[in-house]
Formats: sequence, structure tokens, C-alpha cells
Amino acid sequence: MVEKVYVTYNDVHKLCQEAAPQMLATLQPQLMIAIGGGGYVPARILRSFLKQPGSPNIPIQAIGLSLYEELPVTDADTTAGVVDQIGTKVMRTQWLDFTSLGGMENLVGKRILIVDEVDDTRTTLEYAVKELQKDVQEVSRKLGRESEKTEFSIFVLHNKDKPKKGVLPADAIDETRYIAARTVPDIWICYPWEAMDIDEHDKLAAEQKNKTAGA
Amino acid sequence: MVEKVYVTYNDVHKLCQEAAPQMLATLQPQLMIAIGGGGYVPARILRSFLKQPGSPNIPIQAIGLSLYEELPVTDADTTAGVVDQIGTKVMRTQWLDFTSLGGMENLVGKRILIVDEVDDTRTTLEYAVKELQKDVQEVSRKLGRESEKTEFSIFVLHNKDKPKKGVLPADAIDETRYIAARTVPDIWICYPWEAMDIDEHDKLAAEQKNKTAGA
Repeated sequence: MVEKVYVTYNDVHKLCQEAAPQMLATLQPQLMIAIGGGGYVPARILRSFLKQPGSPNIPIQAIGLSLYEELPVTDADTTAGVVDQIGTKVMRTQWLDFTSLGGMENLVGKRILIVDEVDDTRTTLEYAVKELQKDVQEVSRKLGRESEKTEFSIFVLHNKDKPKKGVLPADAIDETRYIAARTVPDIWICYPWEAMDIDEHDKLAAEQKNKTAGA
Repeated sequence: MVEKVYVTYNDVHKLCQEAAPQMLATLQPQLMIAIGGGGYVPARILRSFLKQPGSPNIPIQAIGLSLYEELPVTDADTTAGVVDQIGTKVMRTQWLDFTSLGGMENLVGKRILIVDEVDDTRTTLEYAVKELQKDVQEVSRKLGRESEKTEFSIFVLHNKDKPKKGVLPADAIDETRYIAARTVPDIWICYPWEAMDIDEHDKLAAEQKNKTAGA
């Protein structure tokens, strides 16, 4: 049985708070892109901790991506050698909208922080970075601004330490621009916004913390 | 001094949970539109409570609206009778993106729930409803589908009981389609995602609850 780990809202809040100084020191993001639904909560919290006195809030753009398992292949497919495992596809449900912000050229040369809750198979993150890179390259070429460097970085609450299906493009994201508040084994993470009984959820989280402390 | 009220994450979670059954019974939303940044957290929580067994999650589209005070008018302006109060304007930072969802025609005839944290002056909500109505009317006309009714509804965590600057279009939103989890006096609401010290925030919230209980 996969171990379940319960994460409270205050845990999430503190993970964002803890990661913010490093982001401000090294990444200095100018725009956040929240991958919805999971990235909504950490992105909103991070915005509070990335706020600099005298400067406006860092703007957040939300994008919607959902992972769906492709239909399991039939025996006939397998016999025919078509595919031999269940595939995973990313579906876009919302993308950037820069129409009111001076157009997509405003992405060029910016430091952009992509925010999600968890890096599980890395499929969604690979998709997000590659598609964003493509958009930026296209508009940079159009404007003759290829020399300007657009920097992507990633923040996730939890990175699962497991073989990843997705690969982040090395020219866009190196380890200095990938921040996971926590690296965890391949466990089942229960986020608070999924809890049907938040008091019970918090109780289970507290019990787990006590156990770890006593171990 | 304006009274400050501290709201914890679990309070927010429970306000969403409490409101969900009424929404499912009467509004039956098919799409949520989260007004960012404040609507991100309640929209994500609501999605969990609006999920019906056997049905997919209700999709969330995020829009970005920020209120900004127009520059205060100068004495010269006032003498000239130009304006006599500070104006408020809504700025769009992100709008709907239906390109991957079959285009904006997919709004037509839908039951759409707009989600924000607080209804303060109502300016942002008026803007959101009116602009969304405009978009739907435009695409309905284009497609010759004016007869299909698109229903808007609103959910906010808190409605401040005060004179409102914004007015919701009566043909779009009546009181049955406006849900505020709590109606409160014109107080200063401290949401948890703005807390620099979440433990202190929770302590202050608990003290307020004890005081109210003892009163």
C-alpha cells in the first residue's frame, strides 16, 4: 500500500514562505505562471512573500493543464505491436492571455516562475516549459529580439523522488532554477484543498508529525 | 480604527464546504471563473466540494482583475469642478482562453459560477459580470444562438454590508444567484494567504472566536 502523507494548509503556507528568500535572491521572478488547479494556492501564497516594499505585486497568469491517461490499449493493439503501455497526455484548458498586458512580447526577456503543487511524473512541467519556450521563441523571432534571454524557473511544493517520464529542457531549466520545497519518496500526498474533512485531515497530519518526531 | 478579523485557511475551507450543497442544488455550475488572485484559493477548494461521483471536475478558468485607485485629483481640478472624489478603475491582467476548449461558443448556454474572496465595493464583480455578459452576447449573436440562456452566478467568501459602488446587472444576477458564505460589517478581513506569520494569524483568529463565544 502506498503511504499517504497529509499536508495542512499551514504546511503549504510555510513551504512557500521558506522558499521565497532564495527565489528573491537568485531567481528574482517578474511573472508567475500558476498551473491550475494545483498551482493556484501556492502561487497566491508565494505572491505575498515575493512582494517587495514599494513595488507592485508580481503578476500571476494562470494556465490550465490536465493530465489524462490515454485509454488502455486493447489486446488487439498489443498483438499488433501498436503500444504496450498506457500513455499519458497533457490537455490544455487555458493558456496565457497577454492581450491586456501589451501582448506576448512582454514575455520576452522576463524572469518567469512556473508554479505547481507537485512534480510527480514531470509530464505536465515538461509540457509547460516547452510550450512556453516555443511561444517566447516565436515572438522573439518575429520581433528580432532573439538576443534577449527569457529565464524560466520552477517552484513546486513537493518533488517525488522517482523515475520521471518528462524531461525538462536543459537549455531552459538547470538545477539552480528548479526549486522543490521538499523532495519526498513516491508517496501519496494529500493536499488540504482535497480534504472532505479538514479537521480529520489536520489530525492525521499532526499524528504523522508526532510519530516522525518520536522516531 | 477599523476592526480586523482574522480568517484561517480552515475557515475558508469550511465556508466553501458549507456553500457547496446549495450550489449543487440550485446553481449546478458547469464552469467556474476564478477572479485572481483572491478567487484562486476558494475556487480550488470549491472544485473539490462540487465534484460529483462519476463526473469530471468542473473546469476552472482564471481571470485577472485588479482594482486601482485613479490618481487623486488636484485642487485645480476640484476648483474647476472636474471631479471631487478618487475614482476606481478595474484593470484586466488576464481574460478567458477558450482556444483549446472549442472556442468562446462553449460559454453559450452554460451555467457559470464567478468566484472571488470578498465583495467589498462590488466594482470588480460588476466589471466581471458585465464583460462576461458582453462576450457571451457577442458570440451568441454571431452564432445565432441568442435564445440559449447563459446563467451567471457569484460566490464570495465574504460580502461586506456597505453601500456598493458597483451594481450587478439585474438581468444576469438576482439574489438567488448570489451566494456570500458570510455577510459581515465593513471590517478589515485578514485572509490567511496574506499572513506573514501564519501561527500568529491563527492565534489571533482563535482569540477572536473565543471572545465571540464568551460574549
